[in-house]
Amino acid sequence: MNLKDTIRTIPDFPKPGIMYRDITTLLTNRRAFAQTIIDMSAPYQTKDIDNVAGIEARGFTVGGAIAYELGAGFVPIRKAGKLPFDTYAQDYDLEYGSDTLEIHADSIRKGERVLLVDDLIATGGTAEASIKLLLKAGAEIVGAAFIVDLPDLGGLARITKMGIPVTALVTYDGH
Amino acid sequence: MNLKDTIRTIPDFPKPGIMYRDITTLLTNRRAFAQTIIDMSAPYQTKDIDNVAGIEARGFTVGGAIAYELGAGFVPIRKAGKLPFDTYAQDYDLEYGSDTLEIHADSIRKGERVLLVDDLIATGGTAEASIKLLLKAGAEIVGAAFIVDLPDLGGLARITKMGIPVTALVTYDGH
Repeated sequence: MNLKDTIRTIPDFPKPGIMYRDITTLLTNRRAFAQTIIDMSAPYQTKDIDNVAGIEARGFTVGGAIAYELGAGFVPIRKAGKLPFDTYAQDYDLEYGSDTLEIHADSIRKGERVLLVDDLIATGGTAEASIKLLLKAGAEIVGAAFIVDLPDLGGLARITKMGIPVTALVTYDGH
Repeated sequence: MNLKDTIRTIPDFPKPGIMYRDITTLLTNRRAFAQTIIDMSAPYQTKDIDNVAGIEARGFTVGGAIAYELGAGFVPIRKAGKLPFDTYAQDYDLEYGSDTLEIHADSIRKGERVLLVDDLIATGGTAEASIKLLLKAGAEIVGAAFIVDLPDLGGLARITKMGIPVTALVTYDGH
């Protein structure tokens, strides 16, 4: 099946000019969801992944399923103030202003092999902040996997330049 | 393995007197995570589940993995303002004030068989709000599955009284 056919596009959300790619219609399609998890996991089946790190909140759904498929653990990367134990924090820029992501400082043992997962990569700002957090925590980052890439926004190229292999299943030109 | 041994308790978080049950240490333990997903899914393997509904945000990780294990789709139940399409909304009471959960109005076809999933059930307020949303959306709710139950807060009994079977893997007496 063509996964792109199961993704809904919502024009002008959250603001005029943005074509929002809504993956909830993919998630609720049982065949599309299974294929997504199998295809995102496939390049990492032989890579001995210790933990999958998922970015709050949509990265938790695919990240949890991929961790289970790979026989790995799961590490949440969350918005500031959500994690209850000692954390590392990383700011990242938004179009207006900035935000902060956190990871539990003890969530990863030094040298553990980690796959980063989120639903969509746009500018790559949250992915880059997540990578910095994983490195602070001692991870060896084996790759980063996304359902959707928006190549005109440059995120995939930005993460590839950091030396991290990146995969995406579906690509949309434009924003 | 005893799953309880992999859950971290943080005293006085988020405020004095609360014993916070931190499941991130379970999630990052690959064997504990796999066992959690297998054990939460087991009662529903023969129940023909169409969709697993997960409650934002920790319910997304276990919910995504359980949906994958059961060959089902996944439906997110989110905080107000996060879902991009038409939604149903449901208020629920917090200790001080109230909050709102939403579900996409078209996320479930009438009569679809749904399993509700979250990490922890305390008073059952968010679970009850989620059940009301699933019913508005037309679901037949087959059950509700949690990792942790705090029975002194009455949530499991509250949901059971609504006629919905509930399971939890780990129980803590007290708050």
